[in-house]
Amino acid sequence: MIQTDILIIGAGPTGLFAVFEAGLLQLKCHLIDALPQPGGQLAELYPKKPIFDIPGYPEVLAGDLVNNLMEQIKQFQPGFTLAETAETIEKLEDGTFIVTTNKGTKHHAKAVAIAGGLGTFEPRKPAIENISFYEEKGVEYFVKDPELFRDKDIVIAGGGDSALDWSIFLSNVAKSVTLVHRRNEFRGALDSVEKVQELKKLGKINLITPAEVVAINGKDHVESIVLENDGIQQTVETDYFIPLFGLTPKLGAIANWGLEIEKNAIKVNNALDYQTNIEGIYAIGDVNIYPGKLKLILCGFHEATLMCQSVYNRINPGKKYVLKYTTVSGVDGFDGTRKEAEKAVVKAIE
Amino acid sequence: MIQTDILIIGAGPTGLFAVFEAGLLQLKCHLIDALPQPGGQLAELYPKKPIFDIPGYPEVLAGDLVNNLMEQIKQFQPGFTLAETAETIEKLEDGTFIVTTNKGTKHHAKAVAIAGGLGTFEPRKPAIENISFYEEKGVEYFVKDPELFRDKDIVIAGGGDSALDWSIFLSNVAKSVTLVHRRNEFRGALDSVEKVQELKKLGKINLITPAEVVAINGKDHVESIVLENDGIQQTVETDYFIPLFGLTPKLGAIANWGLEIEKNAIKVNNALDYQTNIEGIYAIGDVNIYPGKLKLILCGFHEATLMCQSVYNRINPGKKYVLKYTTVSGVDGFDGTRKEAEKAVVKAIE
Ligand SMILES: Cc1cc2nc3c(=O)[nH]c(=O)nc-3n(C[C@H](O)[C@H](O)[C@H](O)COP(=O)(O)OP(=O)(O)OC[C@H]3O[C@@H](n4cnc5c(N)ncnc54)[C@H](O)[C@@H]3O)c2cc1C
Ligand SMILES: Cc1cc2nc3c(=O)[nH]c(=O)nc-3n(C[C@H](O)[C@H](O)[C@H](O)COP(=O)(O)OP(=O)(O)OC[C@H]3O[C@@H](n4cnc5c(N)ncnc54)[C@H](O)[C@@H]3O)c2cc1C
Repeated sequence: MIQTDILIIGAGPTGLFAVFEAGLLQLKCHLIDALPQPGGQLAELYPKKPIFDIPGYPEVLAGDLVNNLMEQIKQFQPGFTLAETAETIEKLEDGTFIVTTNKGTKHHAKAVAIAGGLGTFEPRKPAIENISFYEEKGVEYFVKDPELFRDKDIVIAGGGDSALDWSIFLSNVAKSVTLVHRRNEFRGALDSVEKVQELKKLGKINLITPAEVVAINGKDHVESIVLENDGIQQTVETDYFIPLFGLTPKLGAIANWGLEIEKNAIKVNNALDYQTNIEGIYAIGDVNIYPGKLKLILCGFHEATLMCQSVYNRINPGKKYVLKYTTVSGVDGFDGTRKEAEKAVVKAIE
Repeated sequence: MIQTDILIIGAGPTGLFAVFEAGLLQLKCHLIDALPQPGGQLAELYPKKPIFDIPGYPEVLAGDLVNNLMEQIKQFQPGFTLAETAETIEKLEDGTFIVTTNKGTKHHAKAVAIAGGLGTFEPRKPAIENISFYEEKGVEYFVKDPELFRDKDIVIAGGGDSALDWSIFLSNVAKSVTLVHRRNEFRGALDSVEKVQELKKLGKINLITPAEVVAINGKDHVESIVLENDGIQQTVETDYFIPLFGLTPKLGAIANWGLEIEKNAIKVNNALDYQTNIEGIYAIGDVNIYPGKLKLILCGFHEATLMCQSVYNRINPGKKYVLKYTTVSGVDGFDGTRKEAEKAVVKAIE
């Protein structure tokens, strides 16, 4: 069982920054995320796009912001359970919690912070009758680990950035990449479209447009797919079929944890510490709701900070906390490193 | 009379970032600050020190953070009334406000956001009997405009960073710089101490230690000061005397505006919009207080953002505001410039 002080569900910007604020208070964090990488919406939906309203950053790419947050929290050695979904929660008699994922991984924590954003990202699935039979048997809606596809034949379907970018990336990994889209036109960053064009010309991406995947065949695993255009069908042999038709977020299992829900979000006490109706469970970032709530990254940072203070008081009842400025006191990592401002010297001038 | 949508009192990080969030809502801001430059505590007290808890910045110098904020808000062309203190406020019948400074400058605004931090910085004054007579007649507690001292003889007193750094800077501006300190040892950044040592050797700074200024002479203006050490006195002719003995913040005139005050800070409704007991007056950043308040820069950013939303609703009653992401909608400045993410293209691949 994984042990931690604060278990954070969701490794988006809010969950990541919470690790830093917790660390300043000597609290350890562990994060669970359904996605294979940290960064939440920023990493999954718009890593290469600029954000203009992060305070102090006239402009920052979403992916860079995630990298910077990872760098900032490194000193506090957060644990990660990635590509797993938090499914059940149990409150023990001593007020601590056990959270279990869809894969059965158990986490024991003194407090739980739900930083689940809009929820887990559910893939939009193509309307192919037997597709669910092939899930994890050759059908993948996310590229969790590119190595899975090394030296395999793969078919990617979709016409947006994900389909373009993964086709480009996997053309160096897979034995063959076939990209299928129901139109000739793709919608994405100009350089991605141009790169696919170039790889097609080099024969590194096999492009089939317009066409739709209408059937999957195979005994225990995908062996081939059937494409259709204008009533004409064509069978393509492949090891994997990766439909990338976009994601829709779903609050999912968390909706059944006994928390007060409003508009698909978790109600919290914003007048104090972003705690939910269950003591010891907090909700921060996009996942919470309160009067005047704005689903912005910078708001999640503030909420995470106040949540950590509240957890500190919960874990150390009666102990008075005195706010320390990082500039004045420095930052002591759990990894033994220390960041600090250059000390003033006291020195005679002769 | 200066006209604006939101009048912000205090140009620290909180007030500065408020300009950006207001701008996104098409609201214009004007800032008043008692200090001669924007940046609040960061610019005045620790510009060269690193901060470690700005989200997304593993480390940033306080001065750089201020510069970045100024760059970020540039598009929204904020107005500034610097080196003046907001002294009185009047609420008009139509719910708008007039704020007047100690110099008589009048500002008319639809809403007022007090972002006054710990208050205005009051200089610690040396115990010299007639010193107040010479204020603005040769005695200066701040270097507001270095040009005032061009080709003049000046005496600086103090043993910390401000005394060191201004001695260095003004040694290139003034006719002569004399630095007086009651001890031989100075306390400051190593390179500042070393630089003063070097300038002393070059004859560009005249160092007198240990010594204290005990008297000021002159008819209508400082003409000379008297130094003392071990009972021995010495007169130094000078045009200006600049004692830099540190600053203490005072809430000042704002304390008499009829706002609810607790622990030298202004009570606000943190459950909604950081409004004070007077409708239309908000308090954000270090200057406010509520249960669980943390005097941190990142909290001021969040408070500023929610305040702007509330002002928007106040000014546009009944108009429904739909949150727009800067990444998706871009940022349109009042200066005609536009920042935006690169647009996706829709393009055929052949
Ligand atoms: C295109 C786009 C542009 C945007 N532009 C801006 C902008 O300019 N400025 C701005 O401030 N905001 C912007 N946003 C919004 C911003 O991305 C969100 O406010 C931010 O991502 C919220 O962060 P978070 O950490 O609260 O949640 P998220 O980033 O949503 O992360 C939540 C994480 O929790 C995980 N999760 C959820 N439930 C579970 C579970 N049960 N088990 C395991 N993991 C779970 C999810 O997989 C996800 O990774 C934009 C959003 C989009 C989509
Ligand atoms: C040495 C030091 C280190 C710090 N380190 C950190 C850190 O690591 N992390 C962190 O988050 N915070 C840190 N802080 C605290 C941080 O500086 C404050 O939280 C921050 O400055 C608050 O910003 P603000 O804009 O609310 O107020 P301020 O920065 O205090 O700015 C308020 C401004 O209002 C002006 N003002 C006030 N009253 C009036 C008036 N009546 N008329 C005109 N102008 C007025 C003042 O002149 C001032 O410029 C540190 C502070 C110090 C002193």
